[in-house]
This record gives sequence, structure tokens and C-alpha cells, in this order.
Amino acid sequence: MNAKRKLQLKNDELKFVCVGLDTDIKKIPEFILKEKDPIYFFNKKIIDATREHAAAYKINFAFYEVLGAYGFELIQKTLSEIPNDILIIADAKRGDIRNTSEMYATSVFEHFNFDSVTLNPYMGFDSLEPFLSYENKLNFILGLTSNPGAVDIEKIELKIGKKLFQHIIEKIVEWNKKNNNCGIVFGATNAKDLSENLNSMNDCSILLPGVGKQGGSFEEVLNIFNSFNRKNFLVNISRSIIYSDNSEQFDASAYNEIIKLNQQAKLIFKK
Amino acid sequence: MNAKRKLQLKNDELKFVCVGLDTDIKKIPEFILKEKDPIYFFNKKIIDATREHAAAYKINFAFYEVLGAYGFELIQKTLSEIPNDILIIADAKRGDIRNTSEMYATSVFEHFNFDSVTLNPYMGFDSLEPFLSYENKLNFILGLTSNPGAVDIEKIELKIGKKLFQHIIEKIVEWNKKNNNCGIVFGATNAKDLSENLNSMNDCSILLPGVGKQGGSFEEVLNIFNSFNRKNFLVNISRSIIYSDNSEQFDASAYNEIIKLNQQAKLIFKK
Repeated sequence: MNAKRKLQLKNDELKFVCVGLDTDIKKIPEFILKEKDPIYFFNKKIIDATREHAAAYKINFAFYEVLGAYGFELIQKTLSEIPNDILIIADAKRGDIRNTSEMYATSVFEHFNFDSVTLNPYMGFDSLEPFLSYENKLNFILGLTSNPGAVDIEKIELKIGKKLFQHIIEKIVEWNKKNNNCGIVFGATNAKDLSENLNSMNDCSILLPGVGKQGGSFEEVLNIFNSFNRKNFLVNISRSIIYSDNSEQFDASAYNEIIKLNQQAKLIFKK
Repeated sequence: MNAKRKLQLKNDELKFVCVGLDTDIKKIPEFILKEKDPIYFFNKKIIDATREHAAAYKINFAFYEVLGAYGFELIQKTLSEIPNDILIIADAKRGDIRNTSEMYATSVFEHFNFDSVTLNPYMGFDSLEPFLSYENKLNFILGLTSNPGAVDIEKIELKIGKKLFQHIIEKIVEWNKKNNNCGIVFGATNAKDLSENLNSMNDCSILLPGVGKQGGSFEEVLNIFNSFNRKNFLVNISRSIIYSDNSEQFDASAYNEIIKLNQQAKLIFKK
């Protein structure tokens, strides 16, 4: 199924939570360490507990690459546990010269068969085009990120009277016209900027990281989107779902967390 | 040994060629395909033929990730063939929120033990700092890249009267002050910009991709650096060395290519 369509169907059910599988062996419950393949065991349990309620899953490549070749096997095994109707995002911040981006796109979209990827726009259009040429995939391009360093480059003022991230959002909206397969990464820590710029993002899907430990608020994001009468977004939540409990009940606890978030969304969007 | 020092020692010998191991199974000589591990076989032969003459090797992650877990094993096996006194660059264009960049830095600098990495500055200082905190490594941060899309974002005019890449170069020079472990990626296709901006790069090492198929000229780059009386740079050359010959003599041909390039450098720098 077309990736954007997958997401729309979940959004229509008022599901907006993207479960971030930033799985760190140092943070998973200790009792799991006796399993043969603890990270896989953990991921499978989290997926089983949340699959009915998640709008998407996001695999943060860093947490797997740090394990070398085994980490790449883990990605593959984890993907096999996620139902086909849920969007899966490769959070890898790709972007390189064309022949290299072609290889990365082949890796993410064909070797692993992800539905979606995160991309870094710094190197310009031809560095993204190999991804954007996959019509049925969804490409989340960095606009304004959730980290403090977003002010260093992304918020810099341009001669044309805009900030860099605003110019990039315009570009993304333009790039989206061809295959309707572009999305925007916009940090939930920048609520004011989100309100001020949401109208310019047209019908691009928006992926919002930064809720929880980084300081962004789920409720605030929901209220903003609701006030704009928009439902095409995903809020990534990682640590506060997957590490919500350190006991043998960690998966039940993850389930409770996502249920609470979805209820909050229903309350706000049905007002 | 400190990565920057490794590079300096090679530069002092007038070695400036970084051999790009962008190894693609579709492009290596056909007779190698009968080997058990053809890409490793190919890389080892190329390394053996060029190790006395290369200033550095660069592993383009895309070409390995496309093979999944096996690709990561290939990186490890390839690294084990490169002598310790030669700088090895992980060309991976990293940059993410702090806890994620920490994982990537651990992967690149500890799991794989690369000397050096390429980084994307879009997300700002805190996205790079986990790499920059490794004092003995060398971090090549994207300034102006070699691809046509460099005009889209990197060359955009800022309100402060500079182009974005110029502002980023200033930032890199500033970030370099702490550990003297920052370098700059500057596309060899932008010779005019290189001449105009080289003075602002202070003593940051410069990695220049884009020579050969992309249109940059090795000779032109050498002449520019010589005219500025600077020797702290690397020109990445990939396809024209590693795929210079498709016969059983491919490694001898790679040897001849790098010898020719080094002779050219000696001629220019000893003028």
C-alpha cells in the first residue's frame, strides 16, 4: 500500500503516535538480558503490545548501527514483526550526492523495505531525488528539528526575509507536487514556530519528534493541529513508551501509555 | 595516533589522494565474481596496490549498507586491511540529536574504529558535538558540496551578507578551536569558491570530493592549494582509480593511476 495512504488511514482513526524503537541494551529491563536475542525480544514485545494503537513505528538507525552487522540483522528481524498496514520509518537522516543517495534509497526502500525515511536537505534537491522518485514511499525531510542546535543553522535569517527552515519548507512543498510523497520533520519543542508555519506546509505529512525528555508537549501539538483542523501528522514518542516500566510488565506499561495518548487525542479532536 | 597528525605526515610527503572505496559489485571486474567474497577481495587488492601511495581511504557507507548486515561485515573486514598509519574516513554524513549522535559516534569511532567521519551541520552544534568530543579523531563537516544541488541550500544568501556555506565554514573554524579536530568538506567542482574562501578556513584540513566523473579537476585543486602555500588537504578519488581497468590487471592499473596523481602533485608543489 502507498505509504502516505497507510498513514492517512491511521490518522483517520485519530492515531498519531509513532513509537520510536530507540532500543538501547543498557535501558531495557534487566530480566530480558538472559534472552538469546534481548533487543529483538524487547522490540517484539513492544510491537505486540502497541500494534493495535500505533500510527507508525520509527527505527532509529544509530541504535542498531552501534552493534555493527548484528544491528542490521536486528533491524530486519524487528521489521518482520510489524504489521503491513502500519507505516515504518527509517530514521537515518540521509542525503548525499546522487549515486550515493541512490544506494541509500535502495538500501532503505528495497533491501529493508521501509515505507518511509528521514532525509537531510542540506545538500539540495539532487541529493533527495533518488528517494523522492519512489512514488509510493513517504520522505520526511528535516525542516526545523527538536534539538537546541536548531537555532544555529535552521533558524538563520536569509536575505529574502525568511528563516532557512521556512525556505526549506517552501522547497519541500514544491518537491511534493510531483509524487505527493514528501513530509516534513518539525520538532515538537518549537510549538510557536509550528503554529506560525503550519499553513505553509500544505498537505505534507508532518513528523514531530521531541515530545517527552526533549521538552515538547503531546497535548500542545494536538491542540495546534486541531485548531488548524489538520490530522496529517505523527508525534514520535520513544523513551516514555518503551522504557515506561522496568519490570516484567514493561510491555503492559507501554500498552497503557499509548492507550492514554490515543485517548488524549480523541478527547481533543472530538471537541 | 592522532588522526590529524596521521594526515599531516602523509601531506608532508606530498600525498593528497584519498582513495574512495565506493565498491559496487556491478562495477568490479567480472573474473572476481567467482571469489567467495568478491567485494572484500576487490578492496584488499586495491588497498594492497595503493597503500604506499594513498594519503587516506574513504569508505562510503551507502555502498555497504545496501548489502545489509553483510555490508557491515565487509566494512570491518576492509578496515582490517588498511595499515594503521593511514587515515580512514567513514563517509556517512552523520548529524542528529545528541543522544543519537552519541550512538553514531560510538559506532564509527569505537565499534569500527575509524579515524575520521563526514558530518552534516544542518542540525547545529549539539548534533556534532558528540563526534567533536573525540579529541583524536578528525571530523570533516560539510561546507560546500560537489553536487549540482549545492546551489539550492548551501549557496543561499544570508541576511548577514554571506552565503550559508561561508557562515558554516566560520562556525567550523570556531568549533575547531577546542580540540583542533575539525575539517571541512569542499567540493572540487567549486574551484572558484575554493580560491575565494580558502583563507577563511584557517588550519582546518579540507576534504575535496568531486574530481573526475563529477567534473572537478585534480590539477586545478593542487594549483589552488599551492598558490595559498597550503598542504593540509585530501582529494577524494574513487571511480577513476578503483575502476580504471576491468581486467585481471585492475590493481596494477589502480597503482599506476595513484602514482600518476602523486607525481602530478610533486611537480606542482615543488615548483
